[in-house]
Amino acid sequence: MTQNRTLKLGFILHGVGRTWDDWRHPERDVRASTRFSFYRHQAKIAENGKFDFLFVADSLSINEKSSPHYLNRFEPVTILSALAGATDHIGLVGTVSVSYTEPFNVARQFASLDHISHGRAGWNVVTSWLADTAANYGRARHPAHDERYRIAAEHLSVVQGLWDSWEDDALVGDKKSGVFVNPDKLHRLDHAGQYFQSRGPLNIDRSPQGQPVIFQAGASEEGKNFAARHAEVVFCGPHTLQEAQSYYKDLKNRAHKLGRDADLPFILPGAAPIVGLTEEDAEARYQELTALTSIETGLGFLARAFNDHDFRQYDLDSPFPDVEHIGNESNQSASQRILERVRADNLTIRQIALELATPRSDFIGTPTQVADALQNWFETKGADGFNIFEALPGQLELFVEHVIPILQDRGLFRREYEHETFRENLGVPFPVNRYTLNRAQAS
Amino acid sequence: MTQNRTLKLGFILHGVGRTWDDWRHPERDVRASTRFSFYRHQAKIAENGKFDFLFVADSLSINEKSSPHYLNRFEPVTILSALAGATDHIGLVGTVSVSYTEPFNVARQFASLDHISHGRAGWNVVTSWLADTAANYGRARHPAHDERYRIAAEHLSVVQGLWDSWEDDALVGDKKSGVFVNPDKLHRLDHAGQYFQSRGPLNIDRSPQGQPVIFQAGASEEGKNFAARHAEVVFCGPHTLQEAQSYYKDLKNRAHKLGRDADLPFILPGAAPIVGLTEEDAEARYQELTALTSIETGLGFLARAFNDHDFRQYDLDSPFPDVEHIGNESNQSASQRILERVRADNLTIRQIALELATPRSDFIGTPTQVADALQNWFETKGADGFNIFEALPGQLELFVEHVIPILQDRGLFRREYEHETFRENLGVPFPVNRYTLNRAQAS
Repeated sequence: MTQNRTLKLGFILHGVGRTWDDWRHPERDVRASTRFSFYRHQAKIAENGKFDFLFVADSLSINEKSSPHYLNRFEPVTILSALAGATDHIGLVGTVSVSYTEPFNVARQFASLDHISHGRAGWNVVTSWLADTAANYGRARHPAHDERYRIAAEHLSVVQGLWDSWEDDALVGDKKSGVFVNPDKLHRLDHAGQYFQSRGPLNIDRSPQGQPVIFQAGASEEGKNFAARHAEVVFCGPHTLQEAQSYYKDLKNRAHKLGRDADLPFILPGAAPIVGLTEEDAEARYQELTALTSIETGLGFLARAFNDHDFRQYDLDSPFPDVEHIGNESNQSASQRILERVRADNLTIRQIALELATPRSDFIGTPTQVADALQNWFETKGADGFNIFEALPGQLELFVEHVIPILQDRGLFRREYEHETFRENLGVPFPVNRYTLNRAQAS
Repeated sequence: MTQNRTLKLGFILHGVGRTWDDWRHPERDVRASTRFSFYRHQAKIAENGKFDFLFVADSLSINEKSSPHYLNRFEPVTILSALAGATDHIGLVGTVSVSYTEPFNVARQFASLDHISHGRAGWNVVTSWLADTAANYGRARHPAHDERYRIAAEHLSVVQGLWDSWEDDALVGDKKSGVFVNPDKLHRLDHAGQYFQSRGPLNIDRSPQGQPVIFQAGASEEGKNFAARHAEVVFCGPHTLQEAQSYYKDLKNRAHKLGRDADLPFILPGAAPIVGLTEEDAEARYQELTALTSIETGLGFLARAFNDHDFRQYDLDSPFPDVEHIGNESNQSASQRILERVRADNLTIRQIALELATPRSDFIGTPTQVADALQNWFETKGADGFNIFEALPGQLELFVEHVIPILQDRGLFRREYEHETFRENLGVPFPVNRYTLNRAQAS
């Protein structure tokens, strides 16, 4: 760990809401998910709060059971590119699946975003786990869970290889001699692997960050190994500090064993603070949120984690049934997590369902209480920072106005953006171009 | 034809230049192709000039022989999304290949762009013909020329089908009842064709235009048939008014035979006006451009059209050799066009090479002369409008300041944007959602 370790904060743009029911809040705009002005407004508030980055999640299929923020959403690269022109400092991170994209296209789009934003692009690498996604993409079925991470690793290596096509000084642009590019510094990748082939070079100059920042959210065994090896920032979804510490330790150990810098990857649990000006105010806001949710929503969460198993067939107030064998192969991490949580407190079906629908987190309270909780997770090795969801309309403003200044006063968070690029502001090393490095090592 | 037929004008954003050599002009920024501020600046000038749309072309591979504007370029959807936030009225049209993309991804990105821009998206549908493109994409080789158009037609039909997933009023968002979407108005496509399958529905609400505008640039026989059937706007590259009229008549006839509205598709030749304040000024500017080009560049054009044939083996001032048999199968339209031009005026190798490098067009002269030429092409059925290239730095400003007002005074071009969406401003009918139409016809 460095001496001046500070919090990393991301803000998740999720449009209409983040749960199944919160779009029904009186102040939610039901069309927010495709309203650019809404995204731009939130982006500017987050940038005023000196957040490290904005994050746009993704998913690739819907059905009649999908929640509102899945049903209707911007494609991430598109909305992030639009936000690049509306912001100046904040990082722009988006999910793009390796399962249904060509590495050459992904490399170009993120390199373009990195140029447009003057070095603020980040890619959250995912494998697409929803069972019916494959049906939208000309493939009969998803590859198996472990194979998906082999595909992901190869896809990522091709994208990163293509990002190195142009050395930093390859574009010469000498009008006198007529030399536009130095051919010795423009490189083919010539990748021919198990799942992909790509010759290169990429048809866009090296971008300001050299390599956009790599995000990942590994939860399964293969996912955590992938994150430990490849990610610079990792998202996770622990429900308690203890879960967070356990994940944090596990992932940092995996990364350390792989020889990576002790600081990396940065680990950012999701957090949906509910800030009130008093404790009572905060509790009232939390109750406002719970009043919007239904047991049906919780049962829906359960069903999706267990291969669409119908939990309504049981007495909801009886002990949780033995359903381990029906954990969905493609979603094993979610079902395992639920089973562990159930066992820990011996929860009934109703209890776990409601908890899944509206979890009560550590981050509910006055600005000082929320700042204390964030600091506690940060200092007890549960987190390097947080990926902040807006639990209720207005919470982003409250967080920026009241919580951020406390974190700043405590020396835990920046007062100004200090660097040009996202990578530098985040404190992730600048990757030297592989060909430049080879040349330096050879000479 | 309608009574009040007016010009359609697009402006091509091409960054560093549009020829092999024009980047060497003293006022060109050699990094313009990846400079967002340059694109934004040009976009705003074009919007001040009330242009119908901005256009971003594309290509998917480079090698050591590629020209500067191919070597380094933005991915079109990314830069257009950024420009969506920087403009208010102008259409945003980009090339995306059907050869190396998934219809579901393309449908999402253009639907997102259409939402972000409040109804200003257009898709230029291309099949990727450069011989070494396939090498960047995990495929051994390109499909044959005619098969590529079958792929294109199916790809487009899937994208357009997915754009109809949501009927106009599918998103209900009734907070009281908890109904977010009307399931009767959210549709699966269930496409399973020869090249693609996609179930749907698309995970984004119907966009303001319903269907982004479809552009195409058919030059080969299959290409022209595709354009006649599917395109709402067609780009072409005639070198003379006669060529333009011949293409115009041919394509409108093909479209008419297919039962399409007599106005559609709109046909827009490319034009690179060189406007001077006097005739001498215009000629001096043209000479400024020719001074930048070399015979090598012209020979390069020839070589690419004829399967990399080396024309340096001949006396450049002798009659054009018999090379018809080496016309590139994947590029037959370019080689045919060159051969026809050579035969028409019995050109030598040097003559055709130099003409290819810096063609002298009808659109060089004073503002009135340029306006006259544009009007002449328009009124003699050579064009419904033009896709304007900037031949030299500053030409866009000159065109907007001096030529547009003449066209406006003559009633040939709008003074203000009159509608909200690109489609309406362009005068292309709004496509009724297929499911809504079916329901209306059934009742």
